[in-house]
Formats: sequence, C-alpha cells, structure tokens
Amino acid sequence: MKTFKIASIPGDGIGKEVVPAANKVLKTIADIHGGIQFNFTDFPWSCEHYLEHGEMMPEDALERLQNFDSIFLGAVGNLKLVPDHISLWGMLIKIRREFEQVINIRPAKVLKGIRSPLLNPKDFDLIVVRENSEGEYSSVGGNIYKGEDEIAIQNAIFSRKATERAMRFAFELASKRKKHVTSATKSNGIYYSMPFWDSVFEDVSKDYSEIQTDSQHIDALAAFFVTRPHQFDVIVASNLFGDILTDLGAGIMGSVGVAPAANINVNGKYPSMFEPVHGSAPDIVGKGIANPIGQIWTAKMMLDHFGEEELGSVLLDVVESVTNDSILTPDVGGNYTTEEVTNEIIKRLKIVEKQGV
Amino acid sequence: MKTFKIASIPGDGIGKEVVPAANKVLKTIADIHGGIQFNFTDFPWSCEHYLEHGEMMPEDALERLQNFDSIFLGAVGNLKLVPDHISLWGMLIKIRREFEQVINIRPAKVLKGIRSPLLNPKDFDLIVVRENSEGEYSSVGGNIYKGEDEIAIQNAIFSRKATERAMRFAFELASKRKKHVTSATKSNGIYYSMPFWDSVFEDVSKDYSEIQTDSQHIDALAAFFVTRPHQFDVIVASNLFGDILTDLGAGIMGSVGVAPAANINVNGKYPSMFEPVHGSAPDIVGKGIANPIGQIWTAKMMLDHFGEEELGSVLLDVVESVTNDSILTPDVGGNYTTEEVTNEIIKRLKIVEKQGV
Ligand SMILES: CC(C)[C@H](C(=O)O)[C@@H](O)C(=O)O
Ligand SMILES: CC(C)[C@H](C(=O)O)[C@@H](O)C(=O)O
Repeated sequence: MKTFKIASIPGDGIGKEVVPAANKVLKTIADIHGGIQFNFTDFPWSCEHYLEHGEMMPEDALERLQNFDSIFLGAVGNLKLVPDHISLWGMLIKIRREFEQVINIRPAKVLKGIRSPLLNPKDFDLIVVRENSEGEYSSVGGNIYKGEDEIAIQNAIFSRKATERAMRFAFELASKRKKHVTSATKSNGIYYSMPFWDSVFEDVSKDYSEIQTDSQHIDALAAFFVTRPHQFDVIVASNLFGDILTDLGAGIMGSVGVAPAANINVNGKYPSMFEPVHGSAPDIVGKGIANPIGQIWTAKMMLDHFGEEELGSVLLDVVESVTNDSILTPDVGGNYTTEEVTNEIIKRLKIVEKQGV
Repeated sequence: MKTFKIASIPGDGIGKEVVPAANKVLKTIADIHGGIQFNFTDFPWSCEHYLEHGEMMPEDALERLQNFDSIFLGAVGNLKLVPDHISLWGMLIKIRREFEQVINIRPAKVLKGIRSPLLNPKDFDLIVVRENSEGEYSSVGGNIYKGEDEIAIQNAIFSRKATERAMRFAFELASKRKKHVTSATKSNGIYYSMPFWDSVFEDVSKDYSEIQTDSQHIDALAAFFVTRPHQFDVIVASNLFGDILTDLGAGIMGSVGVAPAANINVNGKYPSMFEPVHGSAPDIVGKGIANPIGQIWTAKMMLDHFGEEELGSVLLDVVESVTNDSILTPDVGGNYTTEEVTNEIIKRLKIVEKQGV
C-alpha cells in the first residue's frame, strides 16, 4: 500500500467548498484503486485565523507542513478581513518561497463541453511555466515621505539561477510536447530585468537545438491569447507575467473556476503545493455553486506529481465526460451545484472502475 | 485660417506605410473644411537612422519638436537592426518623458463591421487611462556579477504626484462618460508599489462621490477583458498594466491594427504625441497590407485634442462606414490594401462634405 500524506488547507472563501469536494474525489480514487491511500490532515489557516490569532499561520506552520508529501490548498484572501498583501505574504507566497516551490505550472486548454468566450478557440493546449520565487513579487523596496511628495519604490529581482531554472524546466517540458518554447518578455519597456531575461533565454535555448523558440512582448502575447492561442505550446514567464497570462488562459478556457496549477519544489527538499488558479471568490461564497473542477484538475496534477499519471489521466477524462454532458456550475453556463458536479464525477469514477479501465 | 503644425515621424516598419496614409486623410479633411490647415514636417528618425548616425534622433531633436502643435508618430522598433530597449528609450519613451506626456489614453470599442475574436463581445466601449511617465518603465536599476551569479535589479518608481494625476484624469473622463472608474492593481503580490497605488486611489475617489469605483487585480482584470469587457467604462492603470490591457483591448477589438492612442502633455508646456497601439510589424512590412485604421483613428484623437471634436467625430463615422461595408485589410479578415482602405475613407469624406454634413 502506497500512502501519500496530504496537508489540506482550504483557506478562505470558496476554498472551503472546493477543497472538501476534491478530497472526496481523491478518496474515491484511493478506494477504487485499492493499492494507494491518501492521509489528509486539515489545517484551518485563513484570514479568519488571522483575526483570531494575529497571524495567517502559526509560527511552526512550516515545520508542521514539512513532512507531508504535498500541500493541497484552496484559496487565500478575504479583503473584508485582511489586506491582500498581508494575507498572501503571510501564507501563499510564504509557503511558495520557504518551500522553494520555484516553478508554477499552469496548463490551459479547451475542455470538452465548456464554451470558451472566444469565437474560434480551435483546440488550444498550452502550458505556462511561471517563475515562482522572485522577479516582480519582491518585498524589497519601500516608501519615502508622506502626503503629496510620497514615493514608493518597488524592486524586482531577477537572478540568473532562478531565471535559468524556470527556462530549463520549460525546455524540458516542451521536449515532451510540441517542442516549442515562447519567452514572455518586455525588454522594449523594462530596462534592466527584461533584457537580462532575454539574454538568459538566448543562452539556455542554445542547449536545446531541437526546440523552436520565439520571444514575445507581454502586451502582444496577452493579445495573442485572444487571437491565436492554439499557436502556443510552452510559455515561460516571470512571476508577474506568468500570473497575468494564466488568468487570461483561464479566461479563454471559459472560467477561472476550471484552471489548475502546481507549485513545484524541484529539488525534492520540501513538499510541492497544489492550488488552483482561482481565488477565494467572495461574491459566490456560501451559495454552493463554486466550480470544483479547478481544484479537482489540480488534484490530477498532484497525482501526476506522485507518479500516478495513469490515475491522473483517468480523472481528467472523467471530468471531461461530465463537462461534455453539460453537467456544469453557473460560471460555465450550467445550473448544477458544486456538490452535484462533484458527485457526478465520483459516480463516473466508480463506473470506470467497474468497466475495469 | 487655423493652422496646426504637425511633426510627422513615420519611424520604423509599417509606420512608414500608415503615417503617410493618415496624413493624406488629414489633408483631405483640411481641404474639405477650408478653415483649417495642417503643416506637416517629416522627420526620418528610426532604427535605420540609428545605424547611420549612432542615435535614434539627433541631439537637438527635442528642441526641433518643441514648437510643433503635435507629434504624429507611426511605430518604433526593428529588432533586426537595434535592440528594442535601445530604440525605444532613444525615441518613443524619451519623447514621452521629456515632453511630460504623462497620460496615455487608449479607447477600445467594437467597430462596426470588424469582427471581435470574442463570441459575444456585446457593445463594449472602454477607455484605459495609462500612467505614462514612471512606474515599471524605469531605467533605475542595474546588474551585478557576470555568469551564473548574475542578478538584475529593476526598480519601479511610483510617485504620489504622477499616480494621483493619472487617477484624477480618469475620474474627470469618467464624469463625462458612464461614471465608473476601475483601478488596475496587484496589491496581493506586489508588496510596496501596489498597496501605495490602492491608497492613492482610495484618497482620490473621495473627491468624486458621484463616480462609482472598483479595484481589480491585473490578472483577474485581464481575464475580464475576455469574459465581460462591456462592464467597464474607464480603467486607470500603471504604465505596464496599461500597456498590457491596451494590447488586450486591441485584441478583443479584432486587431492591434485598429487601436488608437494619445500621449497627452497635460500642462500644455510641450506637444502631445499621437501614436497608435500597434508596433512596426516587421512580418508584414512592404506588403502594402498594413491596417491604416489605427493611425487614422489616432489622427481623430489628435483632431479632438486640437479642439476639432466635430471633425474628429465625422472622421470616425466615416471609418466605421468603411469597415461596416467590409472594406478591410487582411488582419481583420479582408483583402483590401492599405491604399484601398485609405482611398475609400478619403472618397467618403468628400461625399460627406457634398452632403453638407
Ligand atoms: C514599444 C513599447 C515600448 C511601447 C510601450 O510599452 O509603451 C508600446 O508597447 C506601446 O504600448 O506604446
Ligand atoms: C493571490 C495572488 C498573490 C496569487 C499570485 O499572484 O501569485 C494568485 O493570483 C495566483 O496566481 O496564484
């Protein structure tokens, strides 16, 4: 029996609705399989926790998370309770950094039965490899003066090591796909970091002569996600550009509610963290209509990471059979609830088992 | 006779094709009107100029431009000849800064007869007010070490003065439109500059109680441009976020080739610069198929700036009558040339005149 220890952190808002849903799906998979099991430990860390304890997570949080095989996170943030930069830097970004989850992988592709807002989405199928440890997300900087003379200075920090690491990850991934890497840059406007980014990309690409490359400024690239997303394979992007492109990727898929993501610790020293693209969605909290697919597809990425690719691919097929039959939450045009969609996925997983697939 | 002195800078690539086209249109308007005239002076500054002279513009360029009523620019950049950050900081960004063109206004709306790549674009009609003088576009920073230890540090600089100025501009604009301003932020990820941005937005909005506001993180906002652009009116954004949103705005309009822009000097000390959203488009240079509408619509914004709003609105109506009759360049699905589209616009302007409209 293979056992995977999962730290389950629903977090805020709809995280509390979709994480339990996805956990139920994972338990079903374990039951069906027989040879694996998932041990979930729940952690109640969130903005509410902050209000009660003055911190997003307890001081020993990272120690307690350290020995899990993975972290399964819902969403963080509740502006009504805690300013976003406090809640995020106190938890999501903190875990990403302290656990050296230096790569964020986010696929975007057409899901059967989910209508893209694009007139002609073709069958786009791309992955954004986002540098997840530095860049524009930096707490280096500060403010000077108060009142009308105030100035805020924000540093973005790009190291060769982290930049190259993200790029090599992208090239390796592309070598198993359509062998094309696009670099997201903005070296025409951003004077130091982006020309540096370009030069690292040029260097790294020399080691992968079988991979085709191109480089696009982020403004043009954002527009291309709307006009010709099917022409991309793997895209490597800085922390901020990756963030923007992946929400856009979720947008063209039809809803941010279906988009999955993985924060990968590449050196194996710490657990990786699996967390969908969407946020805590305060506008729909408590209505039972949050789309569970982003979190469930994220669970599939966790299965892949555990080396259970076959289970992962069965799971995604079942999800697509459900969407294809228009069993959908309101964000993608249906009127099913979180629970109904989840239960349908569970039901079909059991059928697939009986058929011995 | 009112005379407007225009510095015409075609720049690189298709700039050399669309600026002459738009100038012809402007001359037609002057002929028809009778009471105004445009004096064009051409400047050949470009990447080719750089190769010959080692600089994008001569040293006295700004002095020579200073006494014009406006600058009418095509596009800058030719990666085959000059690295982008050299060409852009040597010309486009230099003019924006030295001439204190602190606001960049960029409308995005559905043009009749031009098909949006969105399935259901509704009648979106929004304007992005982009802070155009500072922020992420900064030449403050640098690199340390060579080789594997190299680090690039890029500063973004946000002053209260410039931030507030852009926001007030947006609120004033919204008060003449649908009375809604959206702030593009990223205060959950970017630690100093964006919380600062938010606090200035909160302060400024207190002075405009009749204007509704909301604040969206740039990643979500980019996705909303795809899923519900019709819900926006005026959006105020930093230099980089404004850049990304406006290419995306051009994308949902159907082509970056139709999107107009204006770099506004708000204190009247220096000329403003009118320059479409698109770049030099090396892939289609010399084919005679560049879409002239971005440049021509940009000319309309210049007419507005000259106080000739009526002429501006006649011009945009004529442009839309041409697109509505499917007289389109290939980027928007037609097979007309730059010249044919331009000539049709000119022909119809003359008809409008005969009808005495
Ligand atoms: C060419 C580039 C520097 C420029 C910018 O980013 O400002 C362009 O994309 C624009 O939007 O005018
Ligand atoms: C919540 C926020 C800090 C986060 C990010 O920007 O990284 C989110 O948008 C994401 O993409 O995971």
